[in-house]
Amino acid sequence: MSQRKTLCVVGLGLIGGSIAASVKTRGAPLRVVAADRRRSSLSYALQRGFIDEAAESFEAGVAAADVVILAVPVRSIHELLRGLSGSFRPGQVVTDVGSAKVSILETAREALPKGVAFVGGHPVAGAERSGIASALPGLFEGRTCVLTPARDTDREALESVTELWRTLGSEVIYLSPEKHDRIFALVSHLPHAVAYSLMNAVAGELPVSEMGLAGTSLRDFTRVIRSAPELWRDIFLENRPAVLEAIDVFASRLEELRGAISNRDEAAMVGFFERAADVKGIRWTP
Amino acid sequence: MSQRKTLCVVGLGLIGGSIAASVKTRGAPLRVVAADRRRSSLSYALQRGFIDEAAESFEAGVAAADVVILAVPVRSIHELLRGLSGSFRPGQVVTDVGSAKVSILETAREALPKGVAFVGGHPVAGAERSGIASALPGLFEGRTCVLTPARDTDREALESVTELWRTLGSEVIYLSPEKHDRIFALVSHLPHAVAYSLMNAVAGELPVSEMGLAGTSLRDFTRVIRSAPELWRDIFLENRPAVLEAIDVFASRLEELRGAISNRDEAAMVGFFERAADVKGIRWTP
Repeated sequence: MSQRKTLCVVGLGLIGGSIAASVKTRGAPLRVVAADRRRSSLSYALQRGFIDEAAESFEAGVAAADVVILAVPVRSIHELLRGLSGSFRPGQVVTDVGSAKVSILETAREALPKGVAFVGGHPVAGAERSGIASALPGLFEGRTCVLTPARDTDREALESVTELWRTLGSEVIYLSPEKHDRIFALVSHLPHAVAYSLMNAVAGELPVSEMGLAGTSLRDFTRVIRSAPELWRDIFLENRPAVLEAIDVFASRLEELRGAISNRDEAAMVGFFERAADVKGIRWTP
Repeated sequence: MSQRKTLCVVGLGLIGGSIAASVKTRGAPLRVVAADRRRSSLSYALQRGFIDEAAESFEAGVAAADVVILAVPVRSIHELLRGLSGSFRPGQVVTDVGSAKVSILETAREALPKGVAFVGGHPVAGAERSGIASALPGLFEGRTCVLTPARDTDREALESVTELWRTLGSEVIYLSPEKHDRIFALVSHLPHAVAYSLMNAVAGELPVSEMGLAGTSLRDFTRVIRSAPELWRDIFLENRPAVLEAIDVFASRLEELRGAISNRDEAAMVGFFERAADVKGIRWTP
C-alpha cells in the first residue's frame, strides 16, 4: 500500500477551511497540513480536527506536501506562486481555487520549477460568508468543481486533483482555461458588473427613501452585490479581457432594446423579451 | 346615513379580482359590480362572492357606479378611457392601477367629460401570477399603493380613492405623476430592461448547457424576467421618456466601470463598488 500522501492547504478561509474539514470528515487517506498567516485560524482548525498540522511557514507547509492547494483570493494566488517558487520541488502537484484561470496558468508556467505540475481549479461554491469560522465539511458536496487542464497539463496530476474534488463530494467538469474565463465572464462577472452599475445608477438619482419602492425587482439585484469590493476588483482585473468583452456584448443588447423602445418598435421589443425568457432549459449548477 | 356606494371594477384579472374579493371580505360598505369581456371570470367571481353583480357590458357597469376602477393592463386603460368616454357622468370618480401615470393622466384629461374626477393609482403588489383564479382577498394587505394627484385633482375624489385602498389594507402614499414615473423607471423598469438585456447577451454567446454554471448570480436575474413580453412592451412604451433616461444613466455608470477595469484603476473600481453597496438604508416597500 502506498504511504498516506500529504495535502497542504495554503489559506484557511472559508474555502481552504472547508477543504481541510471535508478531507478529514470524509476520511480521505490524506494528511492535511495548513499554512496561514493568521495563527488564530490555524489554532481554530487544529482544535476542531480540520487539519493534522499547522505549518510554521508557507515554505515549510509547501515543502512537506505532495499536493498543494492555494486557497487564497485570486490576487494572492499570483503572489504565492511567485513568492514560493523556490520551495516547490519536482513531483509535486499544485492546484488553486481562483475564479479566473488564464492569468493564473500564465503565472504558474512562469513561476513553478520544471517538474512541478499545475492544475487550475475553480470550485463553484458561492458562499456569502467568509473566514474559517464559516467553514463547513459539506460545502462542496453535490457542487460543481471546474478543473481547467491545458495542453501541457500533466495527466496524472489532473487525475489526482480530480480525485481530491470527488472525495469532497463535488462533480468535476473540465474546461480549457480560455473557455472557463469566457463562460464565467458572461454568467458570473458580467451580472456583477451590471448589478453594481445598476445600484450606482439608481443611488445616484434617488434618495434612499425612494429606492425601496420597487417591490422586488431592485431587491433581487442587491443580493448579487454583497461581496467585498476587493474581491470583485481582483476578479475583474484577473479576467479583464473576457470581462470587457462581456460588457461590450451586454451594452450592445441594451442599446438594441433602447433603440426598440425609442422607435416604438413593438415587434422588436416582444422578440427581445421572448429571446431573453427562452432560458427554460438552463440546468443550474448546484 | 348615506346610501351604500357602488364600485365598478373593470377587468377581473389578478388585480381587479383581488380588489373585488378584498372589498367583500373586509366588509367595506360598497356594492361591487364588475365588467369583463370574459364571462367565465364574471361567473367565477359571482360564485365566490367576490362581486354583487356582473355588468352586461362595460357601459352598463360604468353607468351604475359611483367609483370606477380600471384594473386592466396599461394599454387597455387608455382604450377604456377613450372608448367609455360617453358612459361616464359628472360626479363619478375614476381611478386605475397602471404602472405609468403621466400618459394615463393625459388621456384621462382628454377623454373624461367635465365633472368626472380622475385619480391615478398604482398598487405596488408585484405578483408573478395573473388571472382571476389567482385573485386573493389579502393581496393588498400591508402593501403600498401609490396615488398620483395632479394640481387639478379633485380633493374629495382623492380622499375617496385613498379610503378605498386603506380599506383594502394598503398604505397609501402620494407622488406627483412625473415623480412616480421617474422613480419607477429607475427602481422597476430599468432593472427589467437590464435583466432582459443581460439574458439576451448571455444567451447569444453561450449554449444553454453552459449558462447554468453561474452559481446564483445569473439566476437572481431570471427571477426578474418572468412576466409576459406584452406587459413590458406596454410599460416601456407608456413610460418611454423616463425609461430612456434611466437607461442612459445606467449606461453611463456601466461605461464608468468599464473604463476603470480597462485602465486597471483599482481605486475607481473599489469606490464604485462601495457606492453601490451603500444601500443599507433602503426600506423595501412591503
